[in-house]
Amino acid sequence: MVDLRVVLVGVEGPVNLGVIARTCVNFGVKELYLVNPVASLEEAVRYSARGRELLLNAVIVDNLDKALKDVDVSVATSAIGFSDGDTIRQAISIEDFVEKVVVKARKLALVFGRESTGLTREELMKTDFLVTIPANPDYPVLNLSQSVAIFLWEIWKRTGLKPSNIPPRATRGDIEKILSILDTITSQIVSSEDKIKRCNIVLRRIIYRSLPSVYEAKVLLYWTRRVERKIMMK
Amino acid sequence: MVDLRVVLVGVEGPVNLGVIARTCVNFGVKELYLVNPVASLEEAVRYSARGRELLLNAVIVDNLDKALKDVDVSVATSAIGFSDGDTIRQAISIEDFVEKVVVKARKLALVFGRESTGLTREELMKTDFLVTIPANPDYPVLNLSQSVAIFLWEIWKRTGLKPSNIPPRATRGDIEKILSILDTITSQIVSSEDKIKRCNIVLRRIIYRSLPSVYEAKVLLYWTRRVERKIMMK
Repeated sequence: MVDLRVVLVGVEGPVNLGVIARTCVNFGVKELYLVNPVASLEEAVRYSARGRELLLNAVIVDNLDKALKDVDVSVATSAIGFSDGDTIRQAISIEDFVEKVVVKARKLALVFGRESTGLTREELMKTDFLVTIPANPDYPVLNLSQSVAIFLWEIWKRTGLKPSNIPPRATRGDIEKILSILDTITSQIVSSEDKIKRCNIVLRRIIYRSLPSVYEAKVLLYWTRRVERKIMMK
Repeated sequence: MVDLRVVLVGVEGPVNLGVIARTCVNFGVKELYLVNPVASLEEAVRYSARGRELLLNAVIVDNLDKALKDVDVSVATSAIGFSDGDTIRQAISIEDFVEKVVVKARKLALVFGRESTGLTREELMKTDFLVTIPANPDYPVLNLSQSVAIFLWEIWKRTGLKPSNIPPRATRGDIEKILSILDTITSQIVSSEDKIKRCNIVLRRIIYRSLPSVYEAKVLLYWTRRVERKIMMK
């Protein structure tokens, strides 16, 4: 799993800073570096919720070089990902970045610029390459904390821990049990072979597509068994 | 391409509200509904950047039903995606949601709850199903605007391209017709009120989540009518 460092250069808004610290914890980031922060840390803490500790332990430095020390790869982020003929504005998309780079990285610094003016050309030059979020071409400039959230989420998705707030999915076996009863029911209520087949195909697709949880499959199994019993009693 | 409506229930923070309006524009969302907003819109505008116009044109309503009018599918979001044996806490992950549901949806409402207490059970019941962002199990509760950003980004990513090889989706009316027959069936085969309710909730969630096409809904309607007739003949 990649070891991630979030680097904020000249962050201006205390709300953004606080929320970003929280988001770091939401996605398992353990290192937060602040290069010449403008925002009040004291005020930012109010918006950090359980990112408070990470924020209070943030490493504050006075230039970008110090924030990039000891990382293998450093990546700058910008809404301006492309400028024809400009060597430092040749971004790759966040998706390619995660797919091709993050999965192989060891220690990676993600660098975000100021809310007002982003990163300077000099700062961009110090990072290894540029990544961008391809948003609405009419207005691609995201709020800083939103941009951080999307980056961390994409990286987390690829490298993160197993989620615990999602119910366990029903197994194929659970679902097949339900489908087998539905087949029996269909054969009792529909006469034409062709129609039986169509009904069963649709039922199969509907149920697999709905991605039932173990619990939902249990209720469905109960329901189908009751229907079957009632129909068979005739 | 999916027609998306963002619904914020009882939003409390003006910064969140402003930033969310901006994020909506970043990802091409054209409808913003506010159910009993607590945050000051006047203050929120200061944080909305070029989301200003969308925020000023937000539809303000006094209950969730009004905000869900005219959508085909309504989806609640929550950090608490799973509770064993609880019919309304059986979330699917945002990735499954986007992969399996959004790509086929026509008009979709994404519902977000209050910063402090989320959505009430009653509100959760009014939506068709639940989706969650599987973040750090130690602290999965994202700031509201971060959660919105991640949802909109994931949806934008998938629907940026125009899929033309996808069948038309069944309307809400088509699906409700099927559910109403399923309700009748359940009341014939299950005796306990509590179990009837559980079965009907699971059936509703399963069917909405599978996002049937017009054709699939037709076959399902046929199938449920045949089951109903058979059961009623007894």
